[in-house]
Amino acid sequence: MNMQKGEHKAITFDDKEDSVKIIDQTLLPFDFQIISINTVQQTYDAIKNMLVRGAPVIGACAAYGVYWAVKECQGNKDCLFQKLEYLKSSRPTAVNLSFAIDWVIDKLKEDYSVPKTLALAKKYAQKDIDDCKAIGEYGFAIIKDLYEKSQKTINILTHCNAGWLATGEYGTALAPIYQAQKEGVPVHIWVDETRPRNQGARLTAWELQQKNVPFTVISDNTGGHLMQKGMVDLVIVGSDRTSVNGDVANKIGTYLKALAAKDNNVPFYVALPTSTIDINIENGLEDIVIEERASDEVAYIKGWNKETNKEETIQLIPDGANALNYAFDVTPAQYVTGLITEKGICKTQKESILALFK
Amino acid sequence: MNMQKGEHKAITFDDKEDSVKIIDQTLLPFDFQIISINTVQQTYDAIKNMLVRGAPVIGACAAYGVYWAVKECQGNKDCLFQKLEYLKSSRPTAVNLSFAIDWVIDKLKEDYSVPKTLALAKKYAQKDIDDCKAIGEYGFAIIKDLYEKSQKTINILTHCNAGWLATGEYGTALAPIYQAQKEGVPVHIWVDETRPRNQGARLTAWELQQKNVPFTVISDNTGGHLMQKGMVDLVIVGSDRTSVNGDVANKIGTYLKALAAKDNNVPFYVALPTSTIDINIENGLEDIVIEERASDEVAYIKGWNKETNKEETIQLIPDGANALNYAFDVTPAQYVTGLITEKGICKTQKESILALFK
Repeated sequence: MNMQKGEHKAITFDDKEDSVKIIDQTLLPFDFQIISINTVQQTYDAIKNMLVRGAPVIGACAAYGVYWAVKECQGNKDCLFQKLEYLKSSRPTAVNLSFAIDWVIDKLKEDYSVPKTLALAKKYAQKDIDDCKAIGEYGFAIIKDLYEKSQKTINILTHCNAGWLATGEYGTALAPIYQAQKEGVPVHIWVDETRPRNQGARLTAWELQQKNVPFTVISDNTGGHLMQKGMVDLVIVGSDRTSVNGDVANKIGTYLKALAAKDNNVPFYVALPTSTIDINIENGLEDIVIEERASDEVAYIKGWNKETNKEETIQLIPDGANALNYAFDVTPAQYVTGLITEKGICKTQKESILALFK
Repeated sequence: MNMQKGEHKAITFDDKEDSVKIIDQTLLPFDFQIISINTVQQTYDAIKNMLVRGAPVIGACAAYGVYWAVKECQGNKDCLFQKLEYLKSSRPTAVNLSFAIDWVIDKLKEDYSVPKTLALAKKYAQKDIDDCKAIGEYGFAIIKDLYEKSQKTINILTHCNAGWLATGEYGTALAPIYQAQKEGVPVHIWVDETRPRNQGARLTAWELQQKNVPFTVISDNTGGHLMQKGMVDLVIVGSDRTSVNGDVANKIGTYLKALAAKDNNVPFYVALPTSTIDINIENGLEDIVIEERASDEVAYIKGWNKETNKEETIQLIPDGANALNYAFDVTPAQYVTGLITEKGICKTQKESILALFK
């Protein structure tokens, strides 16, 4: 394994080399490689092959993609828009991808200057970082309150990966945790492994390790028992899409943890930039469409084989058995204590949510 | 893979060969081997190394162990009881192991005759089978009711393995399902993979496949979403220990499914022989001690490597990361619709449970 502990970011722009630098997240946590991106094609490949994942990082990567496209097309507008359409097709279901590209293009106001495009791409990426920083500060207030009452290490459970690997910096669900660490409030994180793709066991575990935040990986089945035993003070998760009534779509299994939190009076917060609130969806439980992914993600799993010293994929179910793989579920608003956004904490009620946009 | 579909049993006695036959469950679902047991040492090894698992099968295997011990000691009582103590130490936490040995010894009334011991061991094994058959018949009434109302395939979710592989025949949680199949009522089973040891993905999937019962393997995170979408009509799980107030200890994660069932008005039943009701425990949630197992069961997983054509173990979490592994959780009685026992279905209330023993 080629691992180095330190201060990494999921995406940065290197001015000296004139390139975007990303961590190849498909290799984590067993190998660490920084990849340089200088072209539209490399951007497309990095997004399509999930070297970058997490909506905010995909957005930033795509914003820089506009810069490569402007450079490559040298004033040819047809060329430019063809390349942008191509970029958008790299992961068609990722809302941030199109959003980021359109954001840069709109701001350019038909002046497709190379330096101006780069400046806007950087601005887009910085906005994401600023939002996460604010989420961290607002969310930290919740942790601080709990700590002031208990004066003991605050145990926080999280699901999937909504940390700095998924964003420019800080993360969403994990931003309050990093803020707590900075402020000297002791925390310990229960990391749901997050089957079937194991983003918790692979990515959240790795990124917390890089930042020296104490954590323990658990099977997804374990959180309820820990809550019953008083071993969880707070749950914070991210969100892929939140409806106007406060229903939260997030990685499959989030709903089960929200039910357990409710049953044991554990506060259950969702951290998210307001850009992920879909004001076109009134009722998330009814109207958010849940992606069904390949059943092979359930039937097979990859990990490190110590004998061969490489990552390998093994089969988990009998030959000929069926598997089903929904990627997300929707947690009804009633089970969510509050939303931690870059504009403050709000209740999962229509009026509170719409007030964020005023 | 050496797989053969057919009518297997987890444990049988072969009179012609004078040996116990078991399926080596550590190899399933990727290899199938029948093992012959003729000695105390082989019995000890099969239990200790988990070639047999599931309390009822361990009990039957141990009952036959008394037969081997009586044969080997040829009337030497010290030898006999030394061997029985040795057998009991193979898995000290398995209550059925000691129970089965003591049951046979008590019934022998100090007449340690070889044929009498074998007859009693067979009787013990048959009692387990008879109990499971009765559980299947009582539980089938629930499935039948649902089917009469809907006239559609009944979707049943189960967790872990409480099927014929864990018992002499039929199983506990799966017994009503096999009865439904026999009676021509269409069922489809959602099989929780049941991390960390994947008894669902490995054993339940395999045993349902052998019996041609339609099923789909899902990650443990998925059941809540399926219930929200009306895709689950009924949940049936097994139990390792049930307290007098009706709290149910079962494989970790059972509690989360019970919460989701409650939230979505899905009936949640626990199938169990009354021998697993612990009348010494009033309050399961408070007093049932939960086994913590090796964290490596979370950190590593085994499965079939198609490239090397053998089963291999891979690492799932970063080097140096901690993991925690509780094996069971306790589902409070209020979330359990009823207990399906060999004596009938009862409510999870003290009076109803104690009435089973009258």
